[in-house]
Amino acid sequence: MQRYFVEQTARSGERFTLQKDDAHHMKNVMRMDVGDEILVLDGTGLFRCALEELDKQQAIARIVESLPIDTELPIRVTLAYALPKGDKIELVAQKATELGMNQLLVFESARSVSKWDAKKVPKKIERLEKIIKEAAEQSYRAHLPQVDYVTYDEVLQEAPQYTACLVAYEESAKEGEATAFASTLARLQAGDSLLVVIGPEGGLTETEVTRLTDAGFLPASLGRRILRTETAPLYVLSAVSYHFELKG
Amino acid sequence: MQRYFVEQTARSGERFTLQKDDAHHMKNVMRMDVGDEILVLDGTGLFRCALEELDKQQAIARIVESLPIDTELPIRVTLAYALPKGDKIELVAQKATELGMNQLLVFESARSVSKWDAKKVPKKIERLEKIIKEAAEQSYRAHLPQVDYVTYDEVLQEAPQYTACLVAYEESAKEGEATAFASTLARLQAGDSLLVVIGPEGGLTETEVTRLTDAGFLPASLGRRILRTETAPLYVLSAVSYHFELKG
Repeated sequence: MQRYFVEQTARSGERFTLQKDDAHHMKNVMRMDVGDEILVLDGTGLFRCALEELDKQQAIARIVESLPIDTELPIRVTLAYALPKGDKIELVAQKATELGMNQLLVFESARSVSKWDAKKVPKKIERLEKIIKEAAEQSYRAHLPQVDYVTYDEVLQEAPQYTACLVAYEESAKEGEATAFASTLARLQAGDSLLVVIGPEGGLTETEVTRLTDAGFLPASLGRRILRTETAPLYVLSAVSYHFELKG
Repeated sequence: MQRYFVEQTARSGERFTLQKDDAHHMKNVMRMDVGDEILVLDGTGLFRCALEELDKQQAIARIVESLPIDTELPIRVTLAYALPKGDKIELVAQKATELGMNQLLVFESARSVSKWDAKKVPKKIERLEKIIKEAAEQSYRAHLPQVDYVTYDEVLQEAPQYTACLVAYEESAKEGEATAFASTLARLQAGDSLLVVIGPEGGLTETEVTRLTDAGFLPASLGRRILRTETAPLYVLSAVSYHFELKG
């Protein structure tokens, strides 16, 4: 059954109003009609709905039943990801969404080669939101990950809200550190939250790492090989899924 | 220290002869000179070497010492990967190499949209070899993964050579199967080998899956979400690394 993500404001009582893009998709791509059923996700839940109205401008869908959500990771993982070169951020947003990321915080690190012009940030975020929405629908996510452009200070300020905070640090790998990530996951329980900071191509600076460790972030190795900046988030989320969803 | 992968035939006694491309890289990119040291990997080991000769055509490097290899996964993982659309195979080759893949077998599945023209196979493989070599050097791999274009029958014939064989199967995820992958890893030991089959965009056909399970492949879920074909191999390798390298 086709899935559609909507804003929470789209719901009024037992009905959702879906906007132009989705109505167009139903009518012209999926060839749906009144009475057909769709799945609607509004960030709070997953609902089987029947179409009551469908025209070019909008669709109205009545809730038939609320379904259990079973495609979300048991812990909420936020990636704080240093702006990488080129369009790698788009690959990361898409893949991390497929792999269960809860939230994406993009920040400019001292060694980030790319910079986002302040004026262009809204457009950049809008594009990432579109990629994330498509990936969430395709991978049957129930939660639509949020994406924000933040400062490094804001990443540090976020820390106290999380059950655990890690920083992927390749020097840890070189030094043979191999327990921080797994021992952190071992002490997390369903409903807990994890914030993981990942640096840009040249890595985080020592100053940046020190500020993180001072704020309680644990430096963690992600295996014995040196991963590219866009590969590290995929490793983190795959390992979280393996740990919580397949080992259980 | 700069790393160079060479063929095993490049070694003669205690010396390696490196060819034009590498010699050019040392001389013109790295600005090296006779006496400078490099790391040479020949698929059997990792060697610290000193340059004895360096010109436009070749470089001769004398082994100073043999170094321990510590960047390889404890088990050898072969991916049998169905040809995906477009150039996704290049992303998979690069990322899977970073994540420790031992070997890549590319095959045409019934639902593979792309086909490789027989005449073009050598060129396609050559391009993948180049991508893999660069990724292996960048991620400090000691082993250079091999890539081959094989038939589905050849994938099946490979099975008996492996300690364990899995097939990533999204129907397993839908049915709530969540133990095959982890329980397989739990019974593997250092030195063992694992063959993992991953289907194309539309998934493997039922016939293809049946042939695999008849041959002893275990269907395995990769978490609760539906992953794109190019994401599944990265999940597999990340989980193998997490299981063997970080859980201790």
